[in-house]
Amino acid sequence: MNFPMIGRTLGYMILFEAAFMSPAALTAAFYREKSVIWLFVSMVICIVTGLLLVLLIKPKQKRIYAREGSVICALVWFLYSFIGALPFRLSGYIPNMIDAVFETASGFTTTGASILTDVEALPHWLLFWRSFTHWVGGMGILVFVMAIIPLAAGGSTMFLMKAESPGPSVKKMVPKAGQTAGLLYRMYFVLTLSELGILIASKMPIFDSLCLTFGTAGTGGFAVLNSGCAGYPVDQQVILTIFMILFGTNFSAYYLIVTGHAKDVLKISEVTTYFAIIAGAICLITLNISGMYPNLGLAIKDAAFQVGSIITTTGFSTADFNLWPSFAKWILILLMFCGACAGSTGGGMKVSRIQVAVKTVIKELDNAIHPNNIRKIKYDGKVLDHAVLRGINVFIVSYFLVLGASVALISIENMDLETNFTAVVATLNNIGPGLSKVGPAANFSAYGPFATCVLIFDMIAGRLEILPVLVLFSAHTWKDGEFLGPSFGKERRKSKDQDFADDLMI
Amino acid sequence: MNFPMIGRTLGYMILFEAAFMSPAALTAAFYREKSVIWLFVSMVICIVTGLLLVLLIKPKQKRIYAREGSVICALVWFLYSFIGALPFRLSGYIPNMIDAVFETASGFTTTGASILTDVEALPHWLLFWRSFTHWVGGMGILVFVMAIIPLAAGGSTMFLMKAESPGPSVKKMVPKAGQTAGLLYRMYFVLTLSELGILIASKMPIFDSLCLTFGTAGTGGFAVLNSGCAGYPVDQQVILTIFMILFGTNFSAYYLIVTGHAKDVLKISEVTTYFAIIAGAICLITLNISGMYPNLGLAIKDAAFQVGSIITTTGFSTADFNLWPSFAKWILILLMFCGACAGSTGGGMKVSRIQVAVKTVIKELDNAIHPNNIRKIKYDGKVLDHAVLRGINVFIVSYFLVLGASVALISIENMDLETNFTAVVATLNNIGPGLSKVGPAANFSAYGPFATCVLIFDMIAGRLEILPVLVLFSAHTWKDGEFLGPSFGKERRKSKDQDFADDLMI
Repeated sequence: MNFPMIGRTLGYMILFEAAFMSPAALTAAFYREKSVIWLFVSMVICIVTGLLLVLLIKPKQKRIYAREGSVICALVWFLYSFIGALPFRLSGYIPNMIDAVFETASGFTTTGASILTDVEALPHWLLFWRSFTHWVGGMGILVFVMAIIPLAAGGSTMFLMKAESPGPSVKKMVPKAGQTAGLLYRMYFVLTLSELGILIASKMPIFDSLCLTFGTAGTGGFAVLNSGCAGYPVDQQVILTIFMILFGTNFSAYYLIVTGHAKDVLKISEVTTYFAIIAGAICLITLNISGMYPNLGLAIKDAAFQVGSIITTTGFSTADFNLWPSFAKWILILLMFCGACAGSTGGGMKVSRIQVAVKTVIKELDNAIHPNNIRKIKYDGKVLDHAVLRGINVFIVSYFLVLGASVALISIENMDLETNFTAVVATLNNIGPGLSKVGPAANFSAYGPFATCVLIFDMIAGRLEILPVLVLFSAHTWKDGEFLGPSFGKERRKSKDQDFADDLMI
Repeated sequence: MNFPMIGRTLGYMILFEAAFMSPAALTAAFYREKSVIWLFVSMVICIVTGLLLVLLIKPKQKRIYAREGSVICALVWFLYSFIGALPFRLSGYIPNMIDAVFETASGFTTTGASILTDVEALPHWLLFWRSFTHWVGGMGILVFVMAIIPLAAGGSTMFLMKAESPGPSVKKMVPKAGQTAGLLYRMYFVLTLSELGILIASKMPIFDSLCLTFGTAGTGGFAVLNSGCAGYPVDQQVILTIFMILFGTNFSAYYLIVTGHAKDVLKISEVTTYFAIIAGAICLITLNISGMYPNLGLAIKDAAFQVGSIITTTGFSTADFNLWPSFAKWILILLMFCGACAGSTGGGMKVSRIQVAVKTVIKELDNAIHPNNIRKIKYDGKVLDHAVLRGINVFIVSYFLVLGASVALISIENMDLETNFTAVVATLNNIGPGLSKVGPAANFSAYGPFATCVLIFDMIAGRLEILPVLVLFSAHTWKDGEFLGPSFGKERRKSKDQDFADDLMI
């Protein structure tokens, strides 16, 4: 394990985090908030720590391999959450460090679960930082989707496959990973600016527009009012609904539209299935809740907002769906598991994974009847590689293992089952609100430090699609000797540890 | 599809069901219960229907293929549940036919979930029939495990693999399917008689001993007292605990013991893992509930009974675990998913499937770190075939799909989430009691006819390990033309339908 390179890379990432904090200072300047001093203190801590790591660690070996990459990616999210929590903790608005880390992890992982009981008490700069973490997290996911998750299979493999599938033109999208990342960023910027412009045009206050746009773009879900999004006029709620759904769409679709192949979007079955699920869920929930509303229009509006918010794993709310009937609640829970499209900023299991999983079942049913038929599973016209199928299966298994273990761990604090189960579902899928005591009208403050740590882990595990985080806990990751063969392993590890120690000494 | 052969085979099965009903008549004779007349009426209906099917249907083509076998197996459980419900319905002790079918399906599938609020009101012959369905169901599973589930992969494939694995001696166990079935039946009989003998020796009333033994052997869970098993002395509770765990053990273990290879049992990793899980769960739950008990011994006794009852999917209870703390409840829910060993009468996902699924995750983690290592997944020293892995993955996916859809469907009746979720978990895994309103101190009577039908489906789907039941809903199953090729398919279907109609006319 090349520890010096890991340390150095993390150093650079910390410097970036200081840069990400700076826009919040502008908000403070605008609103003349003096507490912003704690933002500057946090930035100084970032810069000093980052510089120390970058300048003092001199790696002898600059090459890093799959496992170093994997470890860096997983560690970065923990580190960002920890350092990003400093403004909350130092300013005293979140007096407990674990809670502050939870809030920040919830931001970067675009979960949107909060331990704050009164968000309106926060100064604007801190609210801005809180929402801005969503936007930064969303950007991070786009790189992630491109570069990192393929290491553990199943995630970006899906996305790349998708990007290649609808026609020859789209293949141009991924000539080089760097170019594609640039392309994704541009789409992300354009969509962000569009939403911001439209919200401001609809007369939403600029500060709210900014924060909600960040929350929508990253499919995060932090709001700036205690009432969530229920207090905004209907037209603004509709705008938010539309943009939540747009940000949960596979970004391949936008590439096709931009390059003049809008018709081909219909050939991306993940996108059409995603919209079909949304339409179906809105209909079912509207039918189920219509009795609670004065007219059908309002029921549809609230059903659409909540469905869009949950399937995209954003987590904004305009209604306390904890009070909805069981059927509507269960549909929302199913949407929590489903999640948005691969190749978007959304979380969850992803529509394409569910589609492929269902296809494997259908194929097996056919096999049971026609044992001699050897059929391949196709997706968007392409035969799926065995590695993709295995990646999806492993993801599903590890997902449920983490889910089961997490609920067991937080159950130790003896909250009720519905709360515990939906708390884990809501964090592992990066949604935000769950049901019962962590419902949209409540928050996560009731959990003690231990459960909060478990839920922080779940948010990051969900964001990285489980395996890259589990890699941190695999003994193989930390055992050395991969490159020299087993016989040299032990010596090499010793010398490396020595190198690392030497580097730190100098 | 060879409908005549399907009809004829089902006819024979119905005649068997009449035979299965006969022992209950002896109970009625002993207790001089006149209501047994309805048992005889039910038997006459069976015999007449069965004979009509067998005598009137004259199949021209006697060969049946995989899909006919698959359809027969799935239909038999529905048919048995329906016909077996007649004594309940005709005698008026369960006035609603759907409820009566639920009770019988719960019996045959060895679930043990009940809609009865007062079991003590039933005459002895009906209680006997109710518990005897567990024992018959348990026998059916043993054949099933042998012969049918391999069609849909993942189930008995595991079992056969297991039977072959511990050493050359065990390979003799499966020279012919018929012989193995005979062997399994003998072990089932011996274990049943042992439990019965020991319970009677412990001074439990003979009738209770009989019924509870049937419930234990089939891992069913119907009790004969309203208090479940809480009213029996501690020593009898301990006997039940031990036999529940024994009946949930892979029967390969008994074969090894009988043939003098007892040491090799430790090489069956499913069995050792099963006992390790049981021991771990008992410790965790005891720690969690000890505060509720006057002394540690009683806490261990109740923890052990409930753990044994739930992991083997029996469903007897000596404590209302719905009142236990969240952690203990969640551990029980995890055990519900886990289930017993393959090659036993227990339900659930099975320990070996979980083991293999966990192995796939561990392998993938290693792969992420050492991408060039090509490792095969081994189980009990044997490399697992790709088909076995695929079967397990498809099982897991279809399992969760059925789970999610079932909860959605029964949620329409607007019971609370915890009740709905655990009702499906408890029926799909053939446990019996769930939590909240379907907890051990409650029953399933609160559900309306629609939800009851969904839960009947879940019990049978769980019993057949999902796919064989889904096959019934696959269009391919009912489309003809497999043997003659697609071009002849349509003509062939017509002529077959004609045959079937002709057969019925005569």
